[in-house]
Amino acid sequence: MITSKDNEIIKNAAKLVKSSKHRKTAMQFTAEGVRICCDGVRSGYNPYLFLYTASAREKYSDAYDEIKSVSESAYEVSETIFERLSDTKSPQGFFCVFNILDKKKNLYRINKQGTYAGLENIQDPSNLGTILRTAEALGIDGVIMSGNCCDVYSPKVVRGSMGAVFRVPLVIREDFCDCIKGLVNDGISVYGSTPRDAEDITKVQFSGGVMLIGNEGNGLTEEILSTCTMRVKIPMKGRAESLNAAMAAGLLMWEMLR
Amino acid sequence: MITSKDNEIIKNAAKLVKSSKHRKTAMQFTAEGVRICCDGVRSGYNPYLFLYTASAREKYSDAYDEIKSVSESAYEVSETIFERLSDTKSPQGFFCVFNILDKKKNLYRINKQGTYAGLENIQDPSNLGTILRTAEALGIDGVIMSGNCCDVYSPKVVRGSMGAVFRVPLVIREDFCDCIKGLVNDGISVYGSTPRDAEDITKVQFSGGVMLIGNEGNGLTEEILSTCTMRVKIPMKGRAESLNAAMAAGLLMWEMLR
Repeated sequence: MITSKDNEIIKNAAKLVKSSKHRKTAMQFTAEGVRICCDGVRSGYNPYLFLYTASAREKYSDAYDEIKSVSESAYEVSETIFERLSDTKSPQGFFCVFNILDKKKNLYRINKQGTYAGLENIQDPSNLGTILRTAEALGIDGVIMSGNCCDVYSPKVVRGSMGAVFRVPLVIREDFCDCIKGLVNDGISVYGSTPRDAEDITKVQFSGGVMLIGNEGNGLTEEILSTCTMRVKIPMKGRAESLNAAMAAGLLMWEMLR
Repeated sequence: MITSKDNEIIKNAAKLVKSSKHRKTAMQFTAEGVRICCDGVRSGYNPYLFLYTASAREKYSDAYDEIKSVSESAYEVSETIFERLSDTKSPQGFFCVFNILDKKKNLYRINKQGTYAGLENIQDPSNLGTILRTAEALGIDGVIMSGNCCDVYSPKVVRGSMGAVFRVPLVIREDFCDCIKGLVNDGISVYGSTPRDAEDITKVQFSGGVMLIGNEGNGLTEEILSTCTMRVKIPMKGRAESLNAAMAAGLLMWEMLR
């Protein structure tokens, strides 16, 4: 049993929880909780590391067996150590480290008949988590993210996505604008959502393509908007100047797939 | 200038921030931040009390004048006192107490041609805030809430609603089930959203009515579902077993008004 916070395994795990930079360097991310750890395993992610408390092992013995059997390494840790790792109030006692980018899950090729979401500079982890969860529920074929979006592998996004981060094909592109230009050149319909000078989405006949959603405060950049095939908007009646970014993304994806 | 945390005005304001019970007894609620306080004033709510810091008064002088001119009472408070009242990390220095239930804004009568949302036992303040914000943006005519929903006047809901709580006609009914039965008896279409034994919402021709949305974990109660005119569902493709309650509410309201 690991009981020291100075243990290298614990120090590394804690760093993965806290630091986006460290997640990028190590190419690993973390998940905490019985449901989300099982979700990762059932989605084909074998834990690089599985940490658990004695009480969790007893309480969730089936889940313990399931996760343990596919983990590269597994250690019992004391409750005190677990609380240090956890970013929740009442930790359940299961914690996994997964390797980033299981290549099978990655979005390599845009299918012309497929329906995708493109996210530019989404900053709020809870918005990103909700967008991924909704994308999965509605049946989006993949998500393209700009490099300046918040970290999709942060604990908040992993939890908020309800495990969709394990399953929705996604790609992060530092050259987001060039990537979108390339799609347009390949004849793929790219829709830019913006309240100004745009078609009402209920009047557009969608047959696949990419729906772009911009930053919470500023929307899509002009550079991106000018490359789109069409600008679209959600018709609004009330005074609230805009919907929350996740809600807007949900309605836009829904209309594309409806 | 108020500098003591033992000042009765401050003690009462702090209690209104923290205690839903006290908000109910006092029939008052609070809002914090420049934008949300102005929003309340512009929506016809005259503050019962306006508290501000010297630096905020200087920095936001136009907003200060606007709020001050309609406030029943106003006091400068020290930064230390303000931080005690605030539930945000970097408070802007404006705080208002408003009276609950400006009768003009209240939902008194259901119009047969109107479109409404009915919320049963929604527990998460951020979901409730998002639902109200979305309801306003889409043009919902009013929201009926069951008595066991979380407090619509909590600081989190007020902030998350982006001020929609000031403007969307709403009513809280302790006798929610009887209320819904009454609407059905009056010939109003009442739709219960549930994943089981339900019509696909894209196949339903809506012309007004009430869309009922249930608790985050358990959905609508059987008692409510059995009184509905029709059970409806959002068709889902992906593995995420359900959408977030606020997202589901958004898509359902959107389809009714589309």
